[in-house]
Amino acid sequence: MTRTPDTPRRSSLERLEQALARIRTPDPFRNSAFTEVFEEHARHEAKQSDERMAAGMGRGSLDGRIVSVKALLDVAGTVTTSGSAVLRAQLPAVEDALVVRHLRAAGAVIIGKTQMTEFAFSALGTNPHDGTPGNPRDRDRAPGGSSSGAVASVIDDMADIAIGSDTGGSLRIPAALSGAVGFKPTGGRVSTVGAFSLSSSLDTIGPTALSVLDCARADQVLSGCTAESGLRTAASGTFRLVVARGRLFDSCEPDVLAAFEDALRLLGSCGVQIENGSIDAALDNIAAIDRIGTFPSIEVGATLRSLGLLSLEGVDPKTRVRIEAGGGVNAVDYVHMTRLRELAIRSFESSFSNDDVFILPTSPIRAPLLSAIEEDAQFHKLNGLVLRNPRVANLLDCPSISLPLPVAGLPIGMMLIGRRNADRRLLEIASLLEAALKGIS
Amino acid sequence: MTRTPDTPRRSSLERLEQALARIRTPDPFRNSAFTEVFEEHARHEAKQSDERMAAGMGRGSLDGRIVSVKALLDVAGTVTTSGSAVLRAQLPAVEDALVVRHLRAAGAVIIGKTQMTEFAFSALGTNPHDGTPGNPRDRDRAPGGSSSGAVASVIDDMADIAIGSDTGGSLRIPAALSGAVGFKPTGGRVSTVGAFSLSSSLDTIGPTALSVLDCARADQVLSGCTAESGLRTAASGTFRLVVARGRLFDSCEPDVLAAFEDALRLLGSCGVQIENGSIDAALDNIAAIDRIGTFPSIEVGATLRSLGLLSLEGVDPKTRVRIEAGGGVNAVDYVHMTRLRELAIRSFESSFSNDDVFILPTSPIRAPLLSAIEEDAQFHKLNGLVLRNPRVANLLDCPSISLPLPVAGLPIGMMLIGRRNADRRLLEIASLLEAALKGIS
Repeated sequence: MTRTPDTPRRSSLERLEQALARIRTPDPFRNSAFTEVFEEHARHEAKQSDERMAAGMGRGSLDGRIVSVKALLDVAGTVTTSGSAVLRAQLPAVEDALVVRHLRAAGAVIIGKTQMTEFAFSALGTNPHDGTPGNPRDRDRAPGGSSSGAVASVIDDMADIAIGSDTGGSLRIPAALSGAVGFKPTGGRVSTVGAFSLSSSLDTIGPTALSVLDCARADQVLSGCTAESGLRTAASGTFRLVVARGRLFDSCEPDVLAAFEDALRLLGSCGVQIENGSIDAALDNIAAIDRIGTFPSIEVGATLRSLGLLSLEGVDPKTRVRIEAGGGVNAVDYVHMTRLRELAIRSFESSFSNDDVFILPTSPIRAPLLSAIEEDAQFHKLNGLVLRNPRVANLLDCPSISLPLPVAGLPIGMMLIGRRNADRRLLEIASLLEAALKGIS
Repeated sequence: MTRTPDTPRRSSLERLEQALARIRTPDPFRNSAFTEVFEEHARHEAKQSDERMAAGMGRGSLDGRIVSVKALLDVAGTVTTSGSAVLRAQLPAVEDALVVRHLRAAGAVIIGKTQMTEFAFSALGTNPHDGTPGNPRDRDRAPGGSSSGAVASVIDDMADIAIGSDTGGSLRIPAALSGAVGFKPTGGRVSTVGAFSLSSSLDTIGPTALSVLDCARADQVLSGCTAESGLRTAASGTFRLVVARGRLFDSCEPDVLAAFEDALRLLGSCGVQIENGSIDAALDNIAAIDRIGTFPSIEVGATLRSLGLLSLEGVDPKTRVRIEAGGGVNAVDYVHMTRLRELAIRSFESSFSNDDVFILPTSPIRAPLLSAIEEDAQFHKLNGLVLRNPRVANLLDCPSISLPLPVAGLPIGMMLIGRRNADRRLLEIASLLEAALKGIS
């Protein structure tokens, strides 16, 4: 946890061996963060990176960094299991997902594929097929998901950066519950070619890491940008934080609320401009969509069909019930949903500027005990609760990031929602807030 | 019909008055080409254009040209009736459709709104609500649709250029059956903002006129291009015509086939490179989609719902039966259709180059007698037949154009299908073929 981007650089191979050693440590909670480890190939990539560095031919800030990728991303020669037993019989991927190709081209060392919830569907991080990685801060608690192993891999020092997906909070929820930074870009910014599609409307691919800077570096590579531009940190007078007061503060644990308000005061004392506001009009628009159905539950059905899965036998009953709900929606209703969403996106986009950022707790609760979510009703209740705030950014097609708050005990996340396509501006602002929260001025 | 872009220019107002006089001529077939005429406003626009011309401040090749727009395009202050009685009670549009704004900015004189089939759904040109404009070549025959009035307005000298929409052939079919040029662009090239949406997946907006050049000029303005670049005519050695032999030649009338083959010989004798080929693989991909459902029948249901029409009462039974079919499709099936289409588009796009153009008859039949399509079964049979070839370009998201063949009697169209986004190249090639067919070398 003490590693930062400024730590003096050791060789990539040396750092890879350390990460591999940690993966091999006989700890059932940690081990289950990975579904597959590319030991030999990663060594080969690390050696090549070290040779480039020695020759002064480095490819930029990701060259030689240890990167894990979520199990829903195609890696040539491996089966894209996407957290489900029913996908294990699929043929291995013929080529890498486009983001994996971008990462390799930038010199990243791909160490392995990380654990996730089935089809990336649920958000507490549990998986009855592959095992549930415990929360890195408390092994008896849920890690958050769906990118559970991704976040565990960076917190437990098994990767510098983890690539995951975020369809309703799948990067930001585990980042909040486990204590990392998780960034979800605007839709379309990062290609989803070669990724298992939970929801073609809402899927995004992004990074989780221990710093905003590492997320920004990864985002630049993921989005196919070949000229590295670095990340300017925003100046405090140039933007405004708008606290999204209202329904998204309901059911917040008192400790979450207190930590959030403490953080606001700290940011205010650092000269950050903060106002109270509301996104309730946008929430009403989302509620109108929700009354018809949800995109993932419908769209994942089409994905499973293209993969030749015509039955849901073998799917976790907790997942299955949601896919079955999507199967009952009518096509005209679905088209209506997509149009309501387009209107909601346009309306929200025109309601603020690139220099406004909405701020709210990522999750109203901290990581629940794994024993408390075994039972279906409680699982669905808490699953819905942790998704409630993050999914707003997916439905409104905005970039969003979760930053860990400086708290003792179980991690708490603060979420920023930026304007559509203002991804870099959001990262610049997040970079300033991160420094302020860490007491770096 | 003898008017060409090279005719010495008379004043815009003079030509407008002539067009208005023709619209006022008491001919029930011709009159029904328009649903609304903007007499006073068009005079105002024509006068302004004449003043600009006199001052040497012309805005380009569309300045002062008489342009009609299809009744599904928003014109501020008028109701967008889209060929249906059930939409007459809607509120008037608050602003012009984006394409109408582009046309006015380019100096076009908007003379009125043209007749169409209900919701642009059917392709023979009949309309029980607003009346059916007869085919301009034979008033007892169907004009083709859905942009029936659009094509009639240019053939009957009531407009220089008509703007219509094409979701499955709605510009190319009436162009073929009535004897004009009709151009459908690649999806997304021309904005559909402010147009009634029959099918958000397949809708395109384009021009029909008496020449490829006028279509190209209009396309440039419609697509929001402000710098006019003119149209180069392709050189005959630089491209290849591939005759799309196979299923799309089934059920062709002998006269259509003969005229098509004659035209090929004529083009070959002019040095155009022609090969036999097939797009049957793409047709198989389309058939797989068709086995699930059709986009317009599903998507128009969502459009009607957004307009507050929750019942289909008052809709032509011939239209209604197709919308009801779409209402029975499941959302997962629909998402599957959209993904099959994406794959079909990508596969077709990679099967040829920008210098290949597929060529085939636009419609396997010439304009049928109106009396022959009154009965439902015969209507649906011939409606499907005239849509069969043109709709391929909509499903595969390609630019496509129908050119009139040099025949006596009822018009016959020859259709070109170009590569996705190679719209200007297709127009350049069409320009050469048009000249060759007219015997201009």
